[in-house]
Amino acid sequence: MKDRRPSAILGNGRCGRYFAVCVSPDSATDSVTFPKFWRLIVANKHVYLFAEGKKEWRDLLGGKGANLAEMTNIGLPVPPGFTITTETCNEYYANGKQMPAGLWDEVAAALKNVEQQTGKGFGDAKNPLLVSVRSGAKFSMPGMMDTVLNLGLNDETLQGIIALSGNERFVYDSYRRFLMMFSDIVLSGDFPKLKKDEFEHIFDHLKHELGAKQDTDVDAAGLKKLCAQYKVYFKDVAGYDFPTDPMQQMKLATEAVFRSWMNDRAIIYRNREKIAHDLGTAVNIQTMVFGNMGNDSGTGVAFTRNAANGENHIFGEYLMNAQGEDVVAGVRTPEPVAQLEAENPAIYKQFITIAHQLEQHYKDMQDIEFTIEKGRLFILQCRSGKRTGVAAVKIAVDQVNEGLITKEQAVSRVPAEALEQLLNPRLINPEKVSPVAKGMSAGPGGAVGHIALDSESAIAMAATGKDVILVRKLTNPDDLGGMLASKGVLTKEGGKTSHAALVARQYGIPTICGCGAVQINEIDRTVNLNGTIFAEGDVISIDGTLGEVYDRALSTEPARVTGDFGTFMEFVDTFRKLGVRANADTPEQAAQSVEFGAEGIGLCRTEHMFMGDRVPAVQDMILAEDEASRDAALAVLLPLQRNDFVGIFKAMVKDGKGLPVTIRLIDPPLHEFLPSLEELLVETTEMRCKGETGAAYAEKMRMLGKVRELHEYNPMLGLRGVRLSIYFPGIVKMQTAAIIGAACEVKKQGIDVHPEIMIPLIGLVTELTLVKGQLEQVAKETMAAEGVEVDYKFGTMIEIPRAALTAGAIAQEAEFFSFGTNDLTQMTFGLSRDDAAKFLPVYLEKKIIKVDPTESIDTVGVGRLMKICVDDAKAVNPKIKLGICGEHGGDPDSVKFCHEIGLTYVSCSPKRLPVARLAAAQAAISGSAPQDK
Amino acid sequence: MKDRRPSAILGNGRCGRYFAVCVSPDSATDSVTFPKFWRLIVANKHVYLFAEGKKEWRDLLGGKGANLAEMTNIGLPVPPGFTITTETCNEYYANGKQMPAGLWDEVAAALKNVEQQTGKGFGDAKNPLLVSVRSGAKFSMPGMMDTVLNLGLNDETLQGIIALSGNERFVYDSYRRFLMMFSDIVLSGDFPKLKKDEFEHIFDHLKHELGAKQDTDVDAAGLKKLCAQYKVYFKDVAGYDFPTDPMQQMKLATEAVFRSWMNDRAIIYRNREKIAHDLGTAVNIQTMVFGNMGNDSGTGVAFTRNAANGENHIFGEYLMNAQGEDVVAGVRTPEPVAQLEAENPAIYKQFITIAHQLEQHYKDMQDIEFTIEKGRLFILQCRSGKRTGVAAVKIAVDQVNEGLITKEQAVSRVPAEALEQLLNPRLINPEKVSPVAKGMSAGPGGAVGHIALDSESAIAMAATGKDVILVRKLTNPDDLGGMLASKGVLTKEGGKTSHAALVARQYGIPTICGCGAVQINEIDRTVNLNGTIFAEGDVISIDGTLGEVYDRALSTEPARVTGDFGTFMEFVDTFRKLGVRANADTPEQAAQSVEFGAEGIGLCRTEHMFMGDRVPAVQDMILAEDEASRDAALAVLLPLQRNDFVGIFKAMVKDGKGLPVTIRLIDPPLHEFLPSLEELLVETTEMRCKGETGAAYAEKMRMLGKVRELHEYNPMLGLRGVRLSIYFPGIVKMQTAAIIGAACEVKKQGIDVHPEIMIPLIGLVTELTLVKGQLEQVAKETMAAEGVEVDYKFGTMIEIPRAALTAGAIAQEAEFFSFGTNDLTQMTFGLSRDDAAKFLPVYLEKKIIKVDPTESIDTVGVGRLMKICVDDAKAVNPKIKLGICGEHGGDPDSVKFCHEIGLTYVSCSPKRLPVARLAAAQAAISGSAPQDK
Repeated sequence: MKDRRPSAILGNGRCGRYFAVCVSPDSATDSVTFPKFWRLIVANKHVYLFAEGKKEWRDLLGGKGANLAEMTNIGLPVPPGFTITTETCNEYYANGKQMPAGLWDEVAAALKNVEQQTGKGFGDAKNPLLVSVRSGAKFSMPGMMDTVLNLGLNDETLQGIIALSGNERFVYDSYRRFLMMFSDIVLSGDFPKLKKDEFEHIFDHLKHELGAKQDTDVDAAGLKKLCAQYKVYFKDVAGYDFPTDPMQQMKLATEAVFRSWMNDRAIIYRNREKIAHDLGTAVNIQTMVFGNMGNDSGTGVAFTRNAANGENHIFGEYLMNAQGEDVVAGVRTPEPVAQLEAENPAIYKQFITIAHQLEQHYKDMQDIEFTIEKGRLFILQCRSGKRTGVAAVKIAVDQVNEGLITKEQAVSRVPAEALEQLLNPRLINPEKVSPVAKGMSAGPGGAVGHIALDSESAIAMAATGKDVILVRKLTNPDDLGGMLASKGVLTKEGGKTSHAALVARQYGIPTICGCGAVQINEIDRTVNLNGTIFAEGDVISIDGTLGEVYDRALSTEPARVTGDFGTFMEFVDTFRKLGVRANADTPEQAAQSVEFGAEGIGLCRTEHMFMGDRVPAVQDMILAEDEASRDAALAVLLPLQRNDFVGIFKAMVKDGKGLPVTIRLIDPPLHEFLPSLEELLVETTEMRCKGETGAAYAEKMRMLGKVRELHEYNPMLGLRGVRLSIYFPGIVKMQTAAIIGAACEVKKQGIDVHPEIMIPLIGLVTELTLVKGQLEQVAKETMAAEGVEVDYKFGTMIEIPRAALTAGAIAQEAEFFSFGTNDLTQMTFGLSRDDAAKFLPVYLEKKIIKVDPTESIDTVGVGRLMKICVDDAKAVNPKIKLGICGEHGGDPDSVKFCHEIGLTYVSCSPKRLPVARLAAAQAAISGSAPQDK
Repeated sequence: MKDRRPSAILGNGRCGRYFAVCVSPDSATDSVTFPKFWRLIVANKHVYLFAEGKKEWRDLLGGKGANLAEMTNIGLPVPPGFTITTETCNEYYANGKQMPAGLWDEVAAALKNVEQQTGKGFGDAKNPLLVSVRSGAKFSMPGMMDTVLNLGLNDETLQGIIALSGNERFVYDSYRRFLMMFSDIVLSGDFPKLKKDEFEHIFDHLKHELGAKQDTDVDAAGLKKLCAQYKVYFKDVAGYDFPTDPMQQMKLATEAVFRSWMNDRAIIYRNREKIAHDLGTAVNIQTMVFGNMGNDSGTGVAFTRNAANGENHIFGEYLMNAQGEDVVAGVRTPEPVAQLEAENPAIYKQFITIAHQLEQHYKDMQDIEFTIEKGRLFILQCRSGKRTGVAAVKIAVDQVNEGLITKEQAVSRVPAEALEQLLNPRLINPEKVSPVAKGMSAGPGGAVGHIALDSESAIAMAATGKDVILVRKLTNPDDLGGMLASKGVLTKEGGKTSHAALVARQYGIPTICGCGAVQINEIDRTVNLNGTIFAEGDVISIDGTLGEVYDRALSTEPARVTGDFGTFMEFVDTFRKLGVRANADTPEQAAQSVEFGAEGIGLCRTEHMFMGDRVPAVQDMILAEDEASRDAALAVLLPLQRNDFVGIFKAMVKDGKGLPVTIRLIDPPLHEFLPSLEELLVETTEMRCKGETGAAYAEKMRMLGKVRELHEYNPMLGLRGVRLSIYFPGIVKMQTAAIIGAACEVKKQGIDVHPEIMIPLIGLVTELTLVKGQLEQVAKETMAAEGVEVDYKFGTMIEIPRAALTAGAIAQEAEFFSFGTNDLTQMTFGLSRDDAAKFLPVYLEKKIIKVDPTESIDTVGVGRLMKICVDDAKAVNPKIKLGICGEHGGDPDSVKFCHEIGLTYVSCSPKRLPVARLAAAQAAISGSAPQDK
């Protein structure tokens, strides 16, 4: 962006008659990354007719000007106009804010050409040419002057328009808007009292005088009076009459555009976005066309294909004798575009041809704005059309089949995130009911059900056949049963990677987190949502995609996976280089993940294997006072867990080939398996108060004592992960026996099986060495007892910063690493995901962070650690497998980063698999080669 | 260590008659870091008389052999002997475990020399020469064979010793020990049933038979019988007679030493310590001497100076007609060495001369073991004597004044840690009362006082003039008042860097943490310490240095700082390159730190400025429902905090020059200023049960609600530090106004002042930019209002891993960085210091970690992050000041690391200042130059 500096090279941009201009072959892309071409242009040419430009000249004509030129040149009926170059802007500043000599002669010549094309005259009282004046830099830039419409209007040309349109009120309304906008946009920099607000005051005063409530209540006479008052006010403030000379209006507006290039907001924006300040802005001057000039005029918006489902037909709507804003405002109901065929077959045919031409030219589905002025069709704008995920996939596949685009283009064009939509039910809200509360989108999809305030009642309600929405302050592993019994989950606290959100994505439960408005009254069993009180059992709907809660039952529609989806994913996998695995904890999830294209399980969490009806045995193990009772409790769990693994191994087979299954040994702190400290405190205090101090009380107090003993100030940084395995070696031994035992059992049934045992929360290589020793012995003993050898691997998660920093040592003890970027991010940022929900919104709002690092890998900080780890690990162990199993494994930007630093695979929840596969393919296509080190 | 491989170079260690041996100029140091010298030695010389060696030949003779040679060569009466070289060991292995040809001829020649020197004969029945056989590698190595004493004993030589000593029982006791030790150490590798235990069984059986309870109850006849039984047992097991030929004994023992070089324990040890396996071990064979050969014999231990206070006189004790173990066992009371002058003036004079000679030779205070055998003095061992901190300082200063050592040697020789002893009162326990419980030493020093179970009662008790020991489960910032009111603190939980330990060191309070035995019964107001019940108010004593609790009042003695201490610190500062600052929060601490040599305050925490009588205003601020009430509460705090800073600034002046004061803005989460959730839960439940649901209940419930709202799952990773300043901008503005206002006020009084404002918990440069903007505006406004400009700096803590990883960006916004290594360590390790107290002991015990990383910087992990940060920061901002203010700033190893990575200063608690200054000087002397980058 910074290379185009003719001023710097040739001195004020001049060298005899020439400028040197550097353009890249495709100026739409960042010029820093592409070779440059220099061309010489005539120095004193400041003005280009649209027909003289092309889309590659964004540097010279700005983005908007280049695009208007392109459409003009491919023969579209674009309202004629011209562009004053960005170079002119730079000359203006270089000359001490003076327009270059000869500029207005060039403008006059261009205007003449436009007048000839339109048959109208700029300032002509009978058939006046009105124009819009717009800024247009290389990059779209908020903070700069946007648009002045209807320039050229004055007391005389106004009469011409009235005569032509036959609508006096409309014309005076346009005039009063022009007077206000021109004053505000063009001149309020010199005269602050010309700001829009001041004109609105005058209008308010007049409305009061006329007894009008709204603008639309004021008739043509009233607006005419208003225009007169505006002009008086203008003169009072500025000391001169409102400029009525159209040419003077144009000069003032052009200079205003140039001046807006250097206003504070624009400079701040460029600094923040690292855009060079010497690019300059162009000015686009274009003929105004009107769709409300009678019944042979009209306006509309159309897509070249169906944006909702992707079908290949024109999709849009129009209104005759109307302006663009009428379509948007919904004052009259627009007609489908197909209707135009009956109404005006010639125009329709022309439009269809243009639509087809545009799609062929841009090789993508287009969103087209058009206006018909007195039977003549004009294209005002075209751009790539926004579409649903379903449509995106169908269009891409169709266009490949049509030969319009390559598979590579098809894969590059569909946004990876869009694929998730294809897998979730959706909430339908045709009546546009307003949400009663909003939170964070955590698990996409819609759900309708009866409110349950805790997991027990969710399970109980679900058992009676009701659909349930679980509403909680925050969920914890104990809520898993309740969450699985529910159609949707709504929590007051927690962010997109809170427990609720993780479970939501893992199990595909539509979920809203961090909905601060939720106020639960546990005594009354009610929820207050922004003042509306819902009793437990009342029905609500949640849209997990939008993060919106509704106070009634809306309906849902199931996920639609068309055949095109499969075809598209085949395209995807031809480009992908990164492996893709699933985070799956049960046989059902495992089966689903194979269906969605997983090449293995990258993370099988074993926590749930300690939950449910196993809680008594788990609590026995925790509360055990000696080794013998602890071992006895573990012995109860062993066959149950072994059976769990058998189910998973059997599900992870594709075409007879066993896929690798990475199993993480127990991770959470033990107090998560015990009752909550707060509940026990309240219960025991109540029992004491009531004098109930018998055996039940003693038992509760014993539990309270143990909970207190296990209580941690910062559980995330406490006794969990490998630390548990070192503190209570029995657990890791039991789990290893269960994994290897299950693998042996499955193998004896003739099934191919490849377990990979993964140790969580390693910070020191010595932790790994110790646990590895214990584990290998158990594995050896188990295989000896079963009489069969299984192929298993041994590795660790990298989720503590120190593990990444000492990867060179750890990689000598591990066959694979898997980045646990959830914890790695939390520790590297010193930020707990559950607690950060309170202040992260403030951080995002104040732009202290641009993207929530728990959603997308922070490449600068966390990513630097990952890169250190990858480089050091590969240096000592070139064959090491490197994966990621944090939630980031399903985030497209993060997948791209993983591809770039050279990971072997990403692992994500089953529903994110298509997203991850597509993101991986796009990363490979975008040419960012994985590092060889 | 790995470069010395003549075997590898010359083939089995031989090349004609020569070996090539690589030695470093001072073999005591790691040869990897020093240039090597090669020398050729005669290949077939395997045996060196002590007189032929020197202390530099540790490679060839082992550490022990080289030292015996040195003492012999400076003319000390060392019992004669010789060393079989380490090379011989390597040859033994290279030749397939065969001794080199000619070895025993060399040994015979050396033995002959020894016999000549001693006038005794090896195997001579009348005047037998007995020898000890010891292993001796270059580095002291557990796991190898240690010592066989009295080798040469058999049924004949035994009679000669009996005749010479006149003590038949002693000789048979020696003989039965020799039979057992020789069997166990030399031969049990071949015959496991020759282990010591088996011999003990035989002895136990005999004692039972003889009705003897203890070994000492068995008379000479009994022991004689035992020796006979041992020999029978030996033959039963080995199938041959116990070797009675002294030469055979020597051959077997020598081979046993060589074989112990490659036993499992030795190999594991070398692997762990990264010692090369090809160094080999030497064998030392030395004449036995006996101090119990009659009244002209004796034995003793002496220091060349007083090891307790450093005074320059011989300090030690001896016993005539005794063995070394008699002195140690305390069977008879030894005499002070001075007594020897009267008893045997010639020997005394000789000993004094030797002692002086040894100190002059080794240039350090020596700890000497000696034996007098039949009127002849022998020196058995000498080594640098252990001494107290007080003695270390006095001896160093005296030796400099005596011209014995240089200042550099004096500074290098005193262990930095030892200085802390000079500043603390000490507990006196002359009657050796046993401790009733043990915990972790957190704050050194002794304290005696009445037990208080919470801060309120501690304060109340102290107010009545009592000395108090505060006993808590764990302390938190609310306990500060109670801790300050106490003479000592004892907690059940928390490690060396827990809140209690931090306060302990900061305020010099003797403290024991993590004393698991503490069981507090809050209902009975008692403490159970390992079964002993103490009521609140009972007196205990704690020794914070040893971590021991006593059940009664012991006495204490105050810190002694002699004039030598000041002199020594002057020496120290001539070498030191690293700056040293203090962590000080009050004017008193500031004044103390200047006295202890601080060059500024590196960390002034402002938390306590929100405590005490300010709590109501702080709670008002937290509970405020709108900005206005929050601002009102802050307005109450402003003048109070400003006054706090005035006091600190005034104290930080030395010789009229204001020292820099780094002030950290508020850091802890706000809920630390509110009542505890648990207490409120119990209180409100009780009130509800009792029907007390009036206004007081409502107020409590409101507080409970706020506490719940502020409650965090992982407060360390939550809303604290700079996040608070962003969430509640009022606090940082108030604190800045207080700091700059105070600085202006002080400056107007003519006092030089240099505040440095430090933002905690930065993870993103954008946090710093935002807060810096707010702060600079307040500073500008405050200075304008005061009408004076002050010089202030703006910087940040580096305590979140991401801050270190993105230091290149952050350093552009900061004038200084200060490493907060407490939090940096916790986050890099994913380890909360309060919770880790549970499992860190297991980690230390299982050698998973060698040093607690909260005590000494983990240079591999945390240190790597620090180095990345330092390098990146200096690259963009070469003038940036870099400090450390975590507790590690007072840890000598950490100070050395800080010096090496090029920090500007370390900051530590006032009492650690001398330690830090000395460690910094030692780092500078040891030649590890700070990095230039």
